[in-house]
Amino acid sequence: MSNTIPTQGRSRVIIEGVSPEIDGGYFPIKRVVGETVEVEADIFTDGHDAITCLLLYRKEGTTTWNEAPMEFLVNDRWRGHFVVAEQGTYVYTIEAWVDRYQSWERDMEKRVKANQNVSVDLLIGAELLEAGSVRAKTDHARKLRDAATILRRGESLSDRIAVALDRNIRDLMLRYSDRRFATRYARELKALVERKRAGFSSWYELFPRSYGPGRKSHGTFKDCEAHLPYVASMGFDVIYFPPIHPIGQTMRKGRNNSLFAEPTDTGSPWAIGSAEGGHKSIHPKLGTLQDFRSFVAKAKEYGIDIALDIAFQCSPDHPYVTEHPEWFRKRPDGTIQYAENPPKKYQDIYPFDFETEKWQELWEELKSVFLFWIKQGVEIFRVDNPHTKSFAFWEWAIQEIRQQHPNVIFLSEAFTRPKVMYRLAKLGFTQSYTYFAWRNDKAGLIEYLTELTQGPAKEFFRPNFWPNTPDILNEYLQHGGRPAFMIRLVLAATMTANYGIYGPAYELCVNVPREPGSEEYLDSEKYEIKNWNLDSLHSIKSFITQVNKIRRENPALQSNRNLQFHRIDNDKIICYSKHTDDYSNIILVVATLDYTYTQSGWVEIPVEDFGIDANQPYQVYDLLNETGYFWNGAWNYIELRPHEIPVHIFRLQAIR
Amino acid sequence: MSNTIPTQGRSRVIIEGVSPEIDGGYFPIKRVVGETVEVEADIFTDGHDAITCLLLYRKEGTTTWNEAPMEFLVNDRWRGHFVVAEQGTYVYTIEAWVDRYQSWERDMEKRVKANQNVSVDLLIGAELLEAGSVRAKTDHARKLRDAATILRRGESLSDRIAVALDRNIRDLMLRYSDRRFATRYARELKALVERKRAGFSSWYELFPRSYGPGRKSHGTFKDCEAHLPYVASMGFDVIYFPPIHPIGQTMRKGRNNSLFAEPTDTGSPWAIGSAEGGHKSIHPKLGTLQDFRSFVAKAKEYGIDIALDIAFQCSPDHPYVTEHPEWFRKRPDGTIQYAENPPKKYQDIYPFDFETEKWQELWEELKSVFLFWIKQGVEIFRVDNPHTKSFAFWEWAIQEIRQQHPNVIFLSEAFTRPKVMYRLAKLGFTQSYTYFAWRNDKAGLIEYLTELTQGPAKEFFRPNFWPNTPDILNEYLQHGGRPAFMIRLVLAATMTANYGIYGPAYELCVNVPREPGSEEYLDSEKYEIKNWNLDSLHSIKSFITQVNKIRRENPALQSNRNLQFHRIDNDKIICYSKHTDDYSNIILVVATLDYTYTQSGWVEIPVEDFGIDANQPYQVYDLLNETGYFWNGAWNYIELRPHEIPVHIFRLQAIR
Repeated sequence: MSNTIPTQGRSRVIIEGVSPEIDGGYFPIKRVVGETVEVEADIFTDGHDAITCLLLYRKEGTTTWNEAPMEFLVNDRWRGHFVVAEQGTYVYTIEAWVDRYQSWERDMEKRVKANQNVSVDLLIGAELLEAGSVRAKTDHARKLRDAATILRRGESLSDRIAVALDRNIRDLMLRYSDRRFATRYARELKALVERKRAGFSSWYELFPRSYGPGRKSHGTFKDCEAHLPYVASMGFDVIYFPPIHPIGQTMRKGRNNSLFAEPTDTGSPWAIGSAEGGHKSIHPKLGTLQDFRSFVAKAKEYGIDIALDIAFQCSPDHPYVTEHPEWFRKRPDGTIQYAENPPKKYQDIYPFDFETEKWQELWEELKSVFLFWIKQGVEIFRVDNPHTKSFAFWEWAIQEIRQQHPNVIFLSEAFTRPKVMYRLAKLGFTQSYTYFAWRNDKAGLIEYLTELTQGPAKEFFRPNFWPNTPDILNEYLQHGGRPAFMIRLVLAATMTANYGIYGPAYELCVNVPREPGSEEYLDSEKYEIKNWNLDSLHSIKSFITQVNKIRRENPALQSNRNLQFHRIDNDKIICYSKHTDDYSNIILVVATLDYTYTQSGWVEIPVEDFGIDANQPYQVYDLLNETGYFWNGAWNYIELRPHEIPVHIFRLQAIR
Repeated sequence: MSNTIPTQGRSRVIIEGVSPEIDGGYFPIKRVVGETVEVEADIFTDGHDAITCLLLYRKEGTTTWNEAPMEFLVNDRWRGHFVVAEQGTYVYTIEAWVDRYQSWERDMEKRVKANQNVSVDLLIGAELLEAGSVRAKTDHARKLRDAATILRRGESLSDRIAVALDRNIRDLMLRYSDRRFATRYARELKALVERKRAGFSSWYELFPRSYGPGRKSHGTFKDCEAHLPYVASMGFDVIYFPPIHPIGQTMRKGRNNSLFAEPTDTGSPWAIGSAEGGHKSIHPKLGTLQDFRSFVAKAKEYGIDIALDIAFQCSPDHPYVTEHPEWFRKRPDGTIQYAENPPKKYQDIYPFDFETEKWQELWEELKSVFLFWIKQGVEIFRVDNPHTKSFAFWEWAIQEIRQQHPNVIFLSEAFTRPKVMYRLAKLGFTQSYTYFAWRNDKAGLIEYLTELTQGPAKEFFRPNFWPNTPDILNEYLQHGGRPAFMIRLVLAATMTANYGIYGPAYELCVNVPREPGSEEYLDSEKYEIKNWNLDSLHSIKSFITQVNKIRRENPALQSNRNLQFHRIDNDKIICYSKHTDDYSNIILVVATLDYTYTQSGWVEIPVEDFGIDANQPYQVYDLLNETGYFWNGAWNYIELRPHEIPVHIFRLQAIR
């Protein structure tokens, strides 16, 4: 007897092609509390026997598997699902086995139909039922034994056959199925379940120093407290601050990124660190740590999370530079290696050397920066350029932090190559910036959104769409004026469940670049204090308020995997929908991408898919205008005038 | 210090998306001796540093990795390749690292172009060269130290820069690169390398009992020896025999699969086993074991392999039934469970019970059947219905047998659902039957062939195309006459490198089904001895001979991954090509699928891809007619008359 024979030689079922499964199960898929995990697999056995397939799942740390039935689709594909009710990590896998009773019952039906002699077959069934009764609980065991008895010696053949084909007996046997030779899928896969805001959030970026009382006076956290009602009234639930630390003096950048700063210039918040402290300190002009904590608490009262910017780089004046010179790379002339992208040099920034001998110390210190701010009440971090730091560090740090602080959300600010962005998402970042700012035409939007919401990335990459940032004022916004700002806002806010704007530049439709061809703002807030006229008549804040309200009130807009594009015979108009799993909430968005001319076209709505009778009128409620219409059938006419209202957000509803 | 910090924290390169990789590396990819394995992966690091990527490979059992360079393609994708020179298993994986010297040299070039002061940078380069010299062999070490010296204090700046950008120095540094922090891909992947015939073979199925001297007299292996020159002259290199074992008497099937056999009926060879023996015995009328061995040896002289049919099922008279009743399932009435597909019953066949308590004994015995015939000189097995036996058994048995007998080829006869067929291929079957017999229209052929030769299956599933078998006489052949037989032969023989026919029914264009709508032959050879008129004027044996000659002489036709379809503006004509990697051999096939009417059209040949100047005439040699033409440019006119010649096989060649 060869000793290489596998011990599980009688397990005849094959389970393969399991989805979702990221990189062979190395990384978890992502969900938020209350969402569904739908699992598919190719499952089959040799021969013609029936199989039973179960989806197994449990919370990590518990030992008992929950079981959900899987149903057969087509082509040996099976599907099951479970709901992730709690935050944390879930584990899932699949178990399947050749089910002799189900096979027997299925065949019995065929034999009876063919009028065959089934006397021996009934005895086989009786044996299976008796074996099942041994596995069953007392009262069920009795039922199965009774059924077996009838199969053996029921009064009439028709009695015996009736029991053989009894659905209740079949269900009972399914429950006590013989699973000795079950196949368990080789891997246990994971789903990371985060809080709801990880999957649905509305961000507003602001520079706290710009909210001082007087012209160009440096704002404080106290000033920002006064500004909270303004942001809250628009319906945002995350306020994101650029770095709030002391700013270096050496090589400080002046206004408009000039190489020479005036003595009055405030510098860029990303040039972190001075004699006054580094990543765990607060710029003295913003206030004290106590002020910051109080601001965070105040924001919480408005339901607003504060997101801090974590930019792991140092100004030459950062205390790390003298305290831990070994964390930086030294040049042969004794100076520290500044950031470069040859031939460009960024002498005001020192990057950390992730290949330093002291890398473990460096990792611990960087992790402690997050922990420090978590202690101050911060639960969201926007991580600056994570793709220029080691992937291994992020993977470790995020896991460590999340384990202790499961509420923490990490937004990856990596505008780089797709595979790098996806890797950061896989290794743990909650949300990610995207290429949205550079997708302004219909084909580009459809292709990109299809990749994000229907491709493999949908399981781990949560896009956060930003129509602008302090670094990105794209050409479309520069040229399109107010309609462009409205269009891009609605696209960002309805195509994906997470979005954000850099304000007040956005609501005030600020659109002047530093120079033609540049995506930088003229007189950028990155380098100076701005005094915004928030009451400007040009502000689209009430439009934004309405859009955020629509997002909150319509659960269809709170997830991404449900996005569908619809046909419209005009390349300047884009049309898409989102719906809840049960179709109780269906949102249809029709937007012109032309900020100049009126556009119109016929849009095709898959009403039947939406559970709406194509031959009956149905209600179409315009959520921006707050007016209702009736439509009829699949094809409907749309006309959009950019200077009036460039976008419709409709709620569709059958009339019942 | 947290103890969860990974030890490899300074390995900054990510390797993912490796291809080919089957089911996370669980199964090997397949190749034959001399083929190439092309490996791709997504490889990248944080930041802007240059990386170096190597493909590592070795023969299993050896410890030293060979290294092949990988080149950058696009979008973080890298590619490398290696040739598998020997039979056996190869292991491959990838190693990549951040390469400081390559980064430095690349940046140095940019700095020099930008006319920057590079004095400190030259010192950095010198340090890197000095570190490299420590890793290098004596004479190379000296070269690197010398280069460092010039970088430090060369006579002129231009001297120093010249050395900094010296290609030879760069290549030397690549060789002695600092690989301390290299990332090794987590998995070692495998390539199973088989002998050439696994990838290129021409099969001919024949029933040995049909070659007796007189009318309906039972043929012997000796008779078959006399028949060898006929098969060999057509150019086949595998003769496949249906089972050659004693045939059961109980429930024997008569002619045309009738339920009642006449005393003179010979029975189906697949009803294996009688008092005269089972799977390790020879039907007495065919001869002795010695006769069989002598036949196998004789066939080898013609370069022909004998393929035996392994059908793991028993007639009720098989010795196993009495010697090992525990290997079968018993019914409550004491009888043994026969094969069924309710309501159909196959009472002449007992299947093995792979869930028997004695499964390990059963496995060993079944494996020993292969080993028995291997001892008699057989190296190819055509396995009957493997999908009705346990997958785990095949996986184990094939691996065990292949380890001791690497020459053995297994053909899977599973006409079943695609995922089941693919699983059998993955777990070890060398070649597989396919759906080819039911793909008779252009769209169906293109879709299927694209899946087989361009999809993931191309790495593990080797199709073996059969236009007919004793069980399959498809409608196309039934109705299409001689042109249909010629067309289907060429498609089978040129679309895939492995193909076979069931003869002489094929070359004699036998096309009468048992009844309309049936795919069974009338008076099937499965149930009776046939006397074929091999000299019939209707035979297409000389056509087949020519096609097999073309296959042997044109290496382009000996692999599958190189198949490409070409556009032709006629849905009844199919056009495709195959070429060797170096384009030294380019074969173009143009076939009409219409066996009745003349068809014509314009075909588009991607001459530029083939390395042929589109503005020069090129040679087109018709290998069936053995006549040459000249064509010019991409578009050429084709006309096919099915009753003359329904197919062209062209060899294309630039005129040099």
